[in-house]
Amino acid sequence: MTKKCFPARIEHVRSQFDGWGIDAFLFFDLNNIRYMTGFSGSDGVLLVGPDDRSRLLVDGRYLTQAKGETEGLDLIYMADKVETITALLSDQRVHVVGFEEAVISVRLHRLLKAKNRQVKFRALFSEIDLLRAHKSDREIACIRKASDIAACALQSVFSVIKPGICERDIALELEYRIRKEGAEGVSFDTIIASGANAALPHARPGSRKLVSGDALVIDYGAVYNGYRSDETCTFFIERVESDLKAVYGLVKVAHDRAIEAVIDGRSCEEVDRVARELISKGGWGDYFGHGTGHGVGLEIHEAPRISVKSEQRLEKGMVVTIEPGIYLPGKWGIRIEDTIRVTSGKAEILTKVPKELTILG
Amino acid sequence: MTKKCFPARIEHVRSQFDGWGIDAFLFFDLNNIRYMTGFSGSDGVLLVGPDDRSRLLVDGRYLTQAKGETEGLDLIYMADKVETITALLSDQRVHVVGFEEAVISVRLHRLLKAKNRQVKFRALFSEIDLLRAHKSDREIACIRKASDIAACALQSVFSVIKPGICERDIALELEYRIRKEGAEGVSFDTIIASGANAALPHARPGSRKLVSGDALVIDYGAVYNGYRSDETCTFFIERVESDLKAVYGLVKVAHDRAIEAVIDGRSCEEVDRVARELISKGGWGDYFGHGTGHGVGLEIHEAPRISVKSEQRLEKGMVVTIEPGIYLPGKWGIRIEDTIRVTSGKAEILTKVPKELTILG
Repeated sequence: MTKKCFPARIEHVRSQFDGWGIDAFLFFDLNNIRYMTGFSGSDGVLLVGPDDRSRLLVDGRYLTQAKGETEGLDLIYMADKVETITALLSDQRVHVVGFEEAVISVRLHRLLKAKNRQVKFRALFSEIDLLRAHKSDREIACIRKASDIAACALQSVFSVIKPGICERDIALELEYRIRKEGAEGVSFDTIIASGANAALPHARPGSRKLVSGDALVIDYGAVYNGYRSDETCTFFIERVESDLKAVYGLVKVAHDRAIEAVIDGRSCEEVDRVARELISKGGWGDYFGHGTGHGVGLEIHEAPRISVKSEQRLEKGMVVTIEPGIYLPGKWGIRIEDTIRVTSGKAEILTKVPKELTILG
Repeated sequence: MTKKCFPARIEHVRSQFDGWGIDAFLFFDLNNIRYMTGFSGSDGVLLVGPDDRSRLLVDGRYLTQAKGETEGLDLIYMADKVETITALLSDQRVHVVGFEEAVISVRLHRLLKAKNRQVKFRALFSEIDLLRAHKSDREIACIRKASDIAACALQSVFSVIKPGICERDIALELEYRIRKEGAEGVSFDTIIASGANAALPHARPGSRKLVSGDALVIDYGAVYNGYRSDETCTFFIERVESDLKAVYGLVKVAHDRAIEAVIDGRSCEEVDRVARELISKGGWGDYFGHGTGHGVGLEIHEAPRISVKSEQRLEKGMVVTIEPGIYLPGKWGIRIEDTIRVTSGKAEILTKVPKELTILG
């Protein structure tokens, strides 16, 4: 990843300070910090101040790493988070500092306020919720590469997916292959859910062994340069019962129509409705208990949300998942998910595994 | 894990309500929730109220899982976090509700306050920081088992650790073996840092290939029943230079003396001082930039902290790491870490790999 993109991202934030009524911004969200600086450590604070030098505060574990990953920032050794921030805010003569309301804890907020009585802290949420939502070509290339790696890895474990293997062993082999193919890691704990376990949308892979006729849900992804892919396949083991075949067909139609509905300017709620109404008309409305999709990027779930309550709109360059599912508790579950790029025309599907009904084993 | 321990843990919290000046507690920290209920999902809220029925709020993804994992709780479907909590607080006629100040975000706190004007929210921090610090025999058995799995896995990859293999490939093989040996996962992203990379205490495994004479830091752990092990070995590849041998000896003495200092009633700061003074006397005081240790359990870093600033005391039943290290930027790093159980006598070392200087390859 080139470092050239970072100054413009910081400048974009700074250019909105007047509108937000602030003269500095303290970032604590590590994904936002990575987005704006390249720093990928597990702790740090970014102060974007009124001048054009931004300060990245890191503790002793990360000074050398931050020096390698970032450019054009003042790196500051943070012995104590609150004290270091306090010294900086005082140095910079900051009056109103914005912060991420959904990230900072009540405790940190209280400590900062107590030490910086001359500073007003302004909570921001909707102003920055979409900060990372529009992806550059370079970011999309990373998600595409992550999707490629994930698909190669999945296809390389098809041969072990047959009656008798347990969910946990499939997860283990798949995650091993994802990293072997060049990913930094997996996007999230892989979901491998068979039979009745598949009725739990967020099941953890367990000791259940596959049996003939199972629906097998595999929800998985790879990380490349920090960017995540997200894809769900539902396979059938050796054979498919006619009722499950019909449900798969319904989920597939909901998935396909929702993807067709994804276009620059469309409301997220409307896209959710397309999938939800189709599933309801099919008689399964009570068995689709989650949203239709979500943004994906440096985080596995980020803005925008594609759900009943979403008030956001899709815009060109956003990357979102479409993932309708039907779950019959105690019996089975079926979900189909792709990660797609919003364009002004037909959405580009970034994930790679074909979603036609597939029998394995 | 038996479910029998959970009611007593909730009761222990409830018995302190009068002292804390609250009549209910809203838990959001998922590790605290798992500790008190067994629920291991990625979202949920636990309301411990004035009566002896506690309420676990989970969304649609987790109803079935929560039913299987918990016992004796009212499971409540949480369509919307703030609305569901609001309805419950009103039903229960709660007046003062405690919450985890270090966990809840400024945003969630604001939304809850706005909807529940009749309720007073009381931030608690030090009162609950040590909630999980004393481990039961059953919890210690899980950490011991996690340590066993980790050590078996590490020993099984010794044969690949030699000049030419890259850090990332060692990490991949080690993490695969940890899960193959029966762990639910790894305690944290494994650190495999060789040569100059080892000077970064939190390095990510990269493409650097081992060369003869390297110091190789492996910081790794396994998860068993939710409980984590934490251990760091520093190996030498093919040979060890005399200066590195001397530094290893110094870190080993600091490690051993600090472990000897760990005893029921001792202050954490004093244990940190034992390691720090030895390293300082050896002339490396400026190159030991982190604390000497930390509690470990459901979380990889939890109370108590063993550091310069810690105000906590060690007590029988706590499980902590001891992990002094010396890091010369651009050159090398050496760290030695064990996870140990505090007793009224000699601490029990739970991690299993011998810490005598070891040459591999």
